[in-house]
Amino acid sequence: MSGTEGKVICCRAAVAWEAGKPLVIEEVEVAPPQANEVRVKILYTSLCHTDVYFWEAKGQNPLFPRIYGHEAGGIVESVGEGVTDLKPGDHVLPVFTGECQECAHCKSEESNMCDLLRINTDRGVMLNDGQSRFSIKGKPIYHFVGTSTFSEYTVIHVGCLAKINPKAPLDKVCVLSCGISTGLGATLNVAKPKKGSTVAVFGLGAVGLAAAEGARMAGASRIIGVDLNSSRFEEAKKFGITEFVNPKDHKKPVQEVIAELTDGGVDRSIECTGNIQAMISAFECVHDGWGVAVLVGVPHKDAVFQTHPVNFLNERTLKGTFFGNYKPRTDIPSVVEKYMNKELELDKFITHQVPFSEINKAFDYMLKGEGLRCIINMEG
Amino acid sequence: MSGTEGKVICCRAAVAWEAGKPLVIEEVEVAPPQANEVRVKILYTSLCHTDVYFWEAKGQNPLFPRIYGHEAGGIVESVGEGVTDLKPGDHVLPVFTGECQECAHCKSEESNMCDLLRINTDRGVMLNDGQSRFSIKGKPIYHFVGTSTFSEYTVIHVGCLAKINPKAPLDKVCVLSCGISTGLGATLNVAKPKKGSTVAVFGLGAVGLAAAEGARMAGASRIIGVDLNSSRFEEAKKFGITEFVNPKDHKKPVQEVIAELTDGGVDRSIECTGNIQAMISAFECVHDGWGVAVLVGVPHKDAVFQTHPVNFLNERTLKGTFFGNYKPRTDIPSVVEKYMNKELELDKFITHQVPFSEINKAFDYMLKGEGLRCIINMEG
Repeated sequence: MSGTEGKVICCRAAVAWEAGKPLVIEEVEVAPPQANEVRVKILYTSLCHTDVYFWEAKGQNPLFPRIYGHEAGGIVESVGEGVTDLKPGDHVLPVFTGECQECAHCKSEESNMCDLLRINTDRGVMLNDGQSRFSIKGKPIYHFVGTSTFSEYTVIHVGCLAKINPKAPLDKVCVLSCGISTGLGATLNVAKPKKGSTVAVFGLGAVGLAAAEGARMAGASRIIGVDLNSSRFEEAKKFGITEFVNPKDHKKPVQEVIAELTDGGVDRSIECTGNIQAMISAFECVHDGWGVAVLVGVPHKDAVFQTHPVNFLNERTLKGTFFGNYKPRTDIPSVVEKYMNKELELDKFITHQVPFSEINKAFDYMLKGEGLRCIINMEG
Repeated sequence: MSGTEGKVICCRAAVAWEAGKPLVIEEVEVAPPQANEVRVKILYTSLCHTDVYFWEAKGQNPLFPRIYGHEAGGIVESVGEGVTDLKPGDHVLPVFTGECQECAHCKSEESNMCDLLRINTDRGVMLNDGQSRFSIKGKPIYHFVGTSTFSEYTVIHVGCLAKINPKAPLDKVCVLSCGISTGLGATLNVAKPKKGSTVAVFGLGAVGLAAAEGARMAGASRIIGVDLNSSRFEEAKKFGITEFVNPKDHKKPVQEVIAELTDGGVDRSIECTGNIQAMISAFECVHDGWGVAVLVGVPHKDAVFQTHPVNFLNERTLKGTFFGNYKPRTDIPSVVEKYMNKELELDKFITHQVPFSEINKAFDYMLKGEGLRCIINMEG
């Protein structure tokens, strides 16, 4: 790939010209990486709810034209000045939030909320010069969360790239860029259920099922899935869910239903819907004395969490997590290894595959609620 | 003491005949201990807010006549059937909540909320037969939280007695029965600040100062005391408090004041007032990424904890604790040892001393907000 180093690359990208309108495959120019930046050839990308949410642009300032995409796997094409951790040919997973390894958060063992590279959905340019690396006939196209993986080539800050085992199949491990790691880490890094414990998972989409997968890996004896859509229950069994509760089937609050099923409450719960009532239920359904609830889903900006403080005083814990508390560069390579050694199962999350030329089909599947992850093959 | 074993003991007790009326020193009969019970000679007792709260009986069902008192130190006089852990002559601290060592909570490493012996403020009788062991001329006098230490002799379930080092001075370590352990444990067992970290303590009464003492012992570099009463600040310095914030001195919410003082928030906070607004502030003043807030104070029964869920999602943790997460029998003896080896300072909590005959003075001190702990010498 050295023949392209330092030069503009012309390649295909799926450009969102307007909110909610189908993406258009365009020929774009991708500038070379600047200081601390890396240009990556994307081989596979997948679609996540967050792409769709910002593409619909119902709740935020619209920023168009833009190249979405943040779950992906690729190979380093060239690196900018000062990049020493990566070299052309390295296999990488882009991550929507970064790790500068120098701020207080990066230096803390407990946080992954990097001050410099924390997710910023409003910024459509690179940090280095405040400009975009994408253009069409010289007119800039905005970036998305620093990744913009719906392009054959993209430029990413080195702090937002996890260098992974080159033997790992990128068409599988690309899903670890966002949603699957988020759910998995919420369980393994934050809820930390002990072997034999009971776990409730609220919301059985990809993130919730990844949380269930984490509970399965941790050896939970009972994993209770909670969802308003009972049609999700059958598939959820593959992810270790042992019991199902649909709140619509009960007159009493779901936290009371779960407490009755579990002699006072579950040991751990993980909330993956973002619905405020589900957050409250997820907290109140954990056992007094030792129960821990973990919030993952992103709430409406005006949502208010409310509970009686005695629920805390009776020795319950409530925590939130962001990207499953994984530090992208430090931790994600080891998650890939868990897949390689067959501890973590990823294939079951991949329900659809489309060639890049048909990327809008992936949006259709997600909008219809069909399947979990659709892999987009950039070569197709 | 063996001469009294199996017999009724007549001795002095301070009886509360009516809500809010001064206690009256009476001659009471104390029946022998039944199965799993222990009769204890109390040498020193101290007064805690909880005694006063239930004596005032403004918020609960009044239960009178009753013998209050639950912070104390004493010596075993005789034991009932089945008691093997204690024998006459053992030095003990009674605790208002127990440890049966057989229920799910006692078997959990994380909980101290024993199913059998968890605090019960409504019950005025012994578990074994539903009767009182106290009487005056045959008429029963109610117990209080299973301890009733305002009596020269009292009968207590073996699960509510911590056997301690007989060399420990009971006139000092008696304060570990309740409030001091509650605050200390909230910091050492639940908040767990690292060396060099920043800690905020809300409420600078005995419990809050014990939480500060825990932060001092843990090596916190900054301990910020928060109280509406600035006159408490000077004394608080003895307990390791390095800075003071009086919310009344600021127009903005105290959590914002603390965030400004600490470059984004403290590492740990401990709430010891029970005021719901203080609870919310204590949570919202911890740093994102790693902050942990611990609730200790008991709220009004109708209080509602409210916050924006993003405060959790930004990797903050909120936990509650009960009796500092100490298991009474398992853990309190080692807290006494921390005093014996001079790691924990207790003498500074003891601001007043009165003979038993003047116990109502201790109530006066507390009602006026004077001092921290008043030791009542049962021989006086």
